[in-house]
Amino acid sequence: VSAEGDFTPATAAVIGLGLIGGSLARDLARRGVRVLGGDADRASIAAAQADGMVHTALGEELEGIEDADVVILAVPVHAAAAVLRSVARRARQARLITDVGSTKAAIIAAAGALGLAARFVGAHPLAGDHRAGWAAGRPELFTGARVYLCAGAEATPGAVALAHAFWRALGGVPELIDAATHDRQLAWTSHLPQVTATVLALALRDGGHSRAALGPGGHDMTRLAGSSPDIWTGIALENAAALSGALDALGERLARFRHTLDSGDEAALRTLFEAAADWSLPGR
Amino acid sequence: VSAEGDFTPATAAVIGLGLIGGSLARDLARRGVRVLGGDADRASIAAAQADGMVHTALGEELEGIEDADVVILAVPVHAAAAVLRSVARRARQARLITDVGSTKAAIIAAAGALGLAARFVGAHPLAGDHRAGWAAGRPELFTGARVYLCAGAEATPGAVALAHAFWRALGGVPELIDAATHDRQLAWTSHLPQVTATVLALALRDGGHSRAALGPGGHDMTRLAGSSPDIWTGIALENAAALSGALDALGERLARFRHTLDSGDEAALRTLFEAAADWSLPGR
Repeated sequence: VSAEGDFTPATAAVIGLGLIGGSLARDLARRGVRVLGGDADRASIAAAQADGMVHTALGEELEGIEDADVVILAVPVHAAAAVLRSVARRARQARLITDVGSTKAAIIAAAGALGLAARFVGAHPLAGDHRAGWAAGRPELFTGARVYLCAGAEATPGAVALAHAFWRALGGVPELIDAATHDRQLAWTSHLPQVTATVLALALRDGGHSRAALGPGGHDMTRLAGSSPDIWTGIALENAAALSGALDALGERLARFRHTLDSGDEAALRTLFEAAADWSLPGR
Repeated sequence: VSAEGDFTPATAAVIGLGLIGGSLARDLARRGVRVLGGDADRASIAAAQADGMVHTALGEELEGIEDADVVILAVPVHAAAAVLRSVARRARQARLITDVGSTKAAIIAAAGALGLAARFVGAHPLAGDHRAGWAAGRPELFTGARVYLCAGAEATPGAVALAHAFWRALGGVPELIDAATHDRQLAWTSHLPQVTATVLALALRDGGHSRAALGPGGHDMTRLAGSSPDIWTGIALENAAALSGALDALGERLARFRHTLDSGDEAALRTLFEAAADWSLPGR
């Protein structure tokens, strides 16, 4: 596989059939891949099989994964290390083991500890929304989406090239990035917006306001608050150090806005709104 | 006009041809209303006339408004009182004077001070987005939108009924509410989400992150940051007391989240995400 080519495996195992894994399974099946599907919830596997997007169910210990050329973990980040243990035990033939988690340093360390360093290339596709479960998946979710790829120092060039080609075949735009850099950056660009929606929802809830009372802007601002608590608890804890710094920065900007509002200084307040608008719409 | 009927005036004056006023002008013109258009920016009037949505341009002192059956102010809230003075001087024939601002107590007080109390019924349609200017307007923006109506104690029942019927004819769903209650409620349901987007944008900007680096969720969470600084500076200052309370509540929830994250208490952190998700998606 060249750095520019696509790679579509004959057999792929998708573990976790939620929004991201379920979308992956659909895309792979539609490209002619034999999809092996695993999920802690057997009903999700059954639904995926009923839809014709998973050909064979993996066992609870991932029995059957031995045939997979590529293994994709699509479980919450805090559940990934345990699943990876079963993968390490059984997926001897796989040329590429990848994942879709929002944090990357911990999973790369876990893969290394399990002897998977050469074949593991972590991935984080910037796709999806607040919904969860098999029914939330959809075909071509990754078309045009940035897909961060993070490889440990021991990953082989061949595995890294395969990861590029695999995600490109799904329509993604792969971009190699150092795992620690990824996690620090995503604390700001993804985890901070998520937690902002969560705390805004908590403030509105505690203030006695229902989501139905919001206008279109407020509705947009709280959509992410409906994201999976399970997935986000794991991400927040795993990236707590970087996320804390981003939350502090948000708290400082909030306090500064509050102070400016209190002062009644119209010009200073307008400057804050203008700085945000200029950032949001360059060249407006 | 009955409480249940619609009312489409023969001649209406729309002052301010931005996103909201421009959408109103389009809807009125398409319903056969002769639209008189005013705007501090003469180019906006010219564009509206070129599009056939404004029939006659009002003068800088609203010369020509004498013919209007209904007058609608659609200027930033801090500019409304000055415009209302010209309206009071000239719009003697108008049976209804209304507006579209996001705060209502101040404009009702201003209308009362100018002798317009009987004919003034303020309105706040929950419609629109972050964009601004004549080009941002679109037909049927108000279809299905809640439209808060606020009348002072001296407004005549006839004017209140006209306001209901006028906004209903545009597809809106009018709801009468006390102005002070409206302003307190909107501080939470609209102004708080706006300022949240603004301070999130400021934090990301100061952290060196561009909007292009955000995933789809982060993009949603910062869209409102592009809203008009002019409009929002006015709204924030006019509703500063109520907005400050809402901002304090947000700051407290943010600090509590930060503290829980620091503690590493997984169950407590999950409880926060779950409370937000339950609020966001009742019955999920």
